[in-house]
Amino acid sequence: MKRRRSLSDKEKALKLLEELGENVYQRMEEGEYPSLRIPDRNVRNIVYDETLRQYVLGPRTSLRTARNIKHLRPLTQLLWLAYFSKLLVGSKKTSTLRDVFYSAQAYRVDFEDQDESDERITELEALLRVAREELNIFPEERSSIFGQLTIRYNVPGYEGRRLDLTSHPDGVMIGPALTGADFVDTDAEMVIAIEKGGLFTRFIEERVHERFKAILINTAGQAPRATRYLIRRLRYELGLPVYILTDGDPWGMHIAMVMISGSANAAHIAQLTTPDAKWIGVWATDIMKYKLPYDRLTDVDVKRLKELREDPRYRGEPWSTQIGAFLKHRRKSEQEAFAKYGLTYIVDKYLPEKLREVRSI
Amino acid sequence: MKRRRSLSDKEKALKLLEELGENVYQRMEEGEYPSLRIPDRNVRNIVYDETLRQYVLGPRTSLRTARNIKHLRPLTQLLWLAYFSKLLVGSKKTSTLRDVFYSAQAYRVDFEDQDESDERITELEALLRVAREELNIFPEERSSIFGQLTIRYNVPGYEGRRLDLTSHPDGVMIGPALTGADFVDTDAEMVIAIEKGGLFTRFIEERVHERFKAILINTAGQAPRATRYLIRRLRYELGLPVYILTDGDPWGMHIAMVMISGSANAAHIAQLTTPDAKWIGVWATDIMKYKLPYDRLTDVDVKRLKELREDPRYRGEPWSTQIGAFLKHRRKSEQEAFAKYGLTYIVDKYLPEKLREVRSI
Repeated sequence: MKRRRSLSDKEKALKLLEELGENVYQRMEEGEYPSLRIPDRNVRNIVYDETLRQYVLGPRTSLRTARNIKHLRPLTQLLWLAYFSKLLVGSKKTSTLRDVFYSAQAYRVDFEDQDESDERITELEALLRVAREELNIFPEERSSIFGQLTIRYNVPGYEGRRLDLTSHPDGVMIGPALTGADFVDTDAEMVIAIEKGGLFTRFIEERVHERFKAILINTAGQAPRATRYLIRRLRYELGLPVYILTDGDPWGMHIAMVMISGSANAAHIAQLTTPDAKWIGVWATDIMKYKLPYDRLTDVDVKRLKELREDPRYRGEPWSTQIGAFLKHRRKSEQEAFAKYGLTYIVDKYLPEKLREVRSI
Repeated sequence: MKRRRSLSDKEKALKLLEELGENVYQRMEEGEYPSLRIPDRNVRNIVYDETLRQYVLGPRTSLRTARNIKHLRPLTQLLWLAYFSKLLVGSKKTSTLRDVFYSAQAYRVDFEDQDESDERITELEALLRVAREELNIFPEERSSIFGQLTIRYNVPGYEGRRLDLTSHPDGVMIGPALTGADFVDTDAEMVIAIEKGGLFTRFIEERVHERFKAILINTAGQAPRATRYLIRRLRYELGLPVYILTDGDPWGMHIAMVMISGSANAAHIAQLTTPDAKWIGVWATDIMKYKLPYDRLTDVDVKRLKELREDPRYRGEPWSTQIGAFLKHRRKSEQEAFAKYGLTYIVDKYLPEKLREVRSI
């Protein structure tokens, strides 16, 4: 194994929450109004960082202080959220955004609707610079993983227990337990993230995990945040290169991009991106090269491509060439289109050819 | 363990496919045009069976014969699908509906679009009276399972290997391998299917699998067909009662109903229903009884309830009382609304009370 994490992410999160609380108490003991400096998430403060290859927040912050009566409500909400998160992490329980909204009612903390509690959770992420997953607040959606990696759990009832991620040939769910587990042993040499469950199962049936020594991830469409967080951990804790295989259309391309460079919505945290992951198709040029079955691009597809062309994340290769090729040929193809050449063609031919191609760039 | 399956579903499917092929060959050797009698899936032939508590097909069939030039195309498509399914089952490979559509191109069998190939697959199901999952054609969507049940795999590379379904505390994916596995050992006394991933995780964290000896299933919204198929197997092979917990609105109620009585679309096969499964809420009357946070029903919700009121599946209890209560109070609540009383209230209070209530009906 390449390396262990020194201070666990949960311990770090707990420490930050404690510091936040201490800071508020201290101010009050000094006879001052408590206040917090919250990073500004307005679009004027979101900038694209060429080196990090992701959107990040600029230096602007706004002061939220108990001195201002208009700030009392959001400040109280934010401090309650910090309290509730500490309770979750401390008791090793998880919740969803929805749970948090309803739980507030148990404490008579008022949120107008879930949008308001979600917004406050995002502020807490920005303030602490940690992903809410580290505060044990998880999305509903679950994707899955399969491959030669053994993990060790840190959740109650499973402490120290291990699981080999080839144990279940339908794939292992990526939920709170897996996201927070330690990586203890692996033979894998790469990670391949796949947009669709059907192809994920095909890859397992064709033993891609052995033939390519690949850890396989089924993102099930747009990768949930917990999955993006896990992919980043696989990249940086295990040093594995990450490849992403999606449909050949602007939507598939953007699924890959969000795993690579993140979204503007999550500019306030870095734990969800993998900037050197590679998109391995289906490229617009593959549709021509492999004579794939295709549909014509719709007006909506074309409009989306033109938007992406203006997006700083899409500067550079393969993006600008592929956007150009989509707009020129006006064709899109799905991952499954390779089945025209037999169910195993994508594994036997396309995958090795494409890996050679992207490694030589 | 209560019982083993005598002839496996896959063996049965293979046998039916062979008989279909032999029948066609025999006709041709006799100098006759091959023909098939396909059950009529038109609405005039879909009837509600009060005893089975599901929609079934009536006796009408239509003849599809190679003598009629208009029938040649759909007949060829159908026979190719039977051939391709046999190939899948024989080689223990799986595919999706989408894969099948593209695979046809490898054989120069023409389908106008995926709707046409999907329609033909449904005809094949109706003809053979088997679910397409038994022909190794699976949906994209995956839900998950957790609980004290040990399974034994039948897929290549895993033959005879076992998995304890408490191995992974995020839940185990329900894909082709799990759907077709044998059940070899269980301590469970019931199955609880849950609409949402967040609550599924909560139930695992609160050890519902031990405290209630329950196998937990996360349907992740409308249960995929493979999941409904698995639930039926748990009910009838293991003799376990099945309970379903959804949001308290017409959509959650219908998620439960489709698991119980199936859909009109799948009237041609019986393997996807569990007629004596019980919906354990959130009921309209629970919203009042537990003083849950709620939203007002929208016009669309009310329209949907009025449709359901006319549906024969919704005759009887608890359905008609609950539809009445929804329409009277005009409130809906989500599963998570119980978090108002603390994150564990739904497990500590609601679940035991509700199980007592439905068992006494």
